[in-house]
Amino acid sequence: MGPIGLVDGRIIDLSEKIVEMEDRGYQFGDGVYEVTRIYNGRPFALRPHIDRLYRSLRELKIPGVYTFDELAAFHDRLIKESGLTSAAVYLQITRGVAPRTHGFPETTVPRLTMSIRPAKTNTELQQSGAKGVYVPDERWLRCDIKSINLLGNILAKQASKEAGAFEAVQIRGSIITEGSSSNFFVVKDGALWTHPISNLILCGITRTLVIEKIAPRLGLPVIEKEFDQSFAFKADELFLTGTTTEIMPLVQMDRDKVGDGKPGPVTRKLIEAYDAMIANECGAK
Amino acid sequence: MGPIGLVDGRIIDLSEKIVEMEDRGYQFGDGVYEVTRIYNGRPFALRPHIDRLYRSLRELKIPGVYTFDELAAFHDRLIKESGLTSAAVYLQITRGVAPRTHGFPETTVPRLTMSIRPAKTNTELQQSGAKGVYVPDERWLRCDIKSINLLGNILAKQASKEAGAFEAVQIRGSIITEGSSSNFFVVKDGALWTHPISNLILCGITRTLVIEKIAPRLGLPVIEKEFDQSFAFKADELFLTGTTTEIMPLVQMDRDKVGDGKPGPVTRKLIEAYDAMIANECGAK
Repeated sequence: MGPIGLVDGRIIDLSEKIVEMEDRGYQFGDGVYEVTRIYNGRPFALRPHIDRLYRSLRELKIPGVYTFDELAAFHDRLIKESGLTSAAVYLQITRGVAPRTHGFPETTVPRLTMSIRPAKTNTELQQSGAKGVYVPDERWLRCDIKSINLLGNILAKQASKEAGAFEAVQIRGSIITEGSSSNFFVVKDGALWTHPISNLILCGITRTLVIEKIAPRLGLPVIEKEFDQSFAFKADELFLTGTTTEIMPLVQMDRDKVGDGKPGPVTRKLIEAYDAMIANECGAK
Repeated sequence: MGPIGLVDGRIIDLSEKIVEMEDRGYQFGDGVYEVTRIYNGRPFALRPHIDRLYRSLRELKIPGVYTFDELAAFHDRLIKESGLTSAAVYLQITRGVAPRTHGFPETTVPRLTMSIRPAKTNTELQQSGAKGVYVPDERWLRCDIKSINLLGNILAKQASKEAGAFEAVQIRGSIITEGSSSNFFVVKDGALWTHPISNLILCGITRTLVIEKIAPRLGLPVIEKEFDQSFAFKADELFLTGTTTEIMPLVQMDRDKVGDGKPGPVTRKLIEAYDAMIANECGAK
């Protein structure tokens, strides 16, 4: 019982060697992924994750070899065989194995790898609020594809880690795009602001839930519009969204306190509503 | 005898499974690579390739676990055990295996994988000249690191393949940067023009040999300066440089002929001088 993996339908130990060196995932990062949170032994928001997976595959012209039902069943098997009830399931599909050349090979068999590891809500940090740092957005121009080409995200996250922060918030030109593994929101005069959907950000599942389900329920207007650092500096509240991040208040950016340096009332209401949504789908955390 | 691989010093069959799913190369593209051409059973320009490898590793803070002599010996073993004399050796180092999280793990053991496959100079295409297409440069802002985050390059190369072309020449803003797996040169009024070294292009080994060794010998001035598509449109000649591309004349870009649609005299002289340089180091092709 504990972390385990799954490759093309077979349960494996995570230390098992299952990939040839010429898997295009290993030589080009030619693949896509998803991470789904498991609460009470049940996947949360699995359908939108798998929908987004299929979109990423389509954009890279990787055949989508598994149906939703098959992928859902793999999630269930990982949960059951690991015995983990509060967890994160990682799922990756690469284009498969072929002699190394940049263009797509004529025929390859996409490879699915999955893993389950324990995960839990960082409630202490949600209560105290997290620290962020601004970094330049050095990623490619197809951030809408959830690909495993993640060096830009890695270098940003590492910079935040070295600064003792929770997340790196990325700036392209003068515009704030998103965190290295999360979306970024500003609360200003009772409205939520966030970068519009484009090739420059990932369309986060939690972002969408906040915008489409939670904000309307709480009567919060949402403005999807580009903004810069000086706008965020004047924010009442800042927060991040993400599958494992959930909703995380930012109470400091670089050296500047956000508002009074404590999680604000709007963010706290969003966390409450998000927890209720999880409880509704999976049972209380 | 034929293509084989090598992992951390051990010769393997390329179909052998040697990588865990949580190798950071497989989940993040967290690694770097080099490709070296073998002529007459001898590596060409190995030293600058390995120097560049160490630079890429330093930029990503991946420990450089092998010395130059060790890596050179691995090249020799692959050549010897494969029996291939006209070949390309691929070499990759990833950060190693760790439970998946964006920031660098405290300790991992970098993993070296190598392969050797047949390769030969495309002399027919060098004589007829190749076709190129322009595509937007969608890659990240650290193209100076020879990383395995290659999706941008792949999508560009695939677009050129679908257009029946040899290479995709990338444009960022209005500036021509480089090919998807090559550097790009303009010949204009007897001078060579190419994008200056910056974070937006890879410092190609063949590019450097042309600029530092061959052009001075032929009395060709080199201008490392940004230029746009309209400048390239007025070129006398265009060519690409790269380890497996060597020096390749471009005689058509999109629908437009370059010059009279045949490889020009300057490019032909460069090919001759490059062949002489190879012959000098490795013996005639």
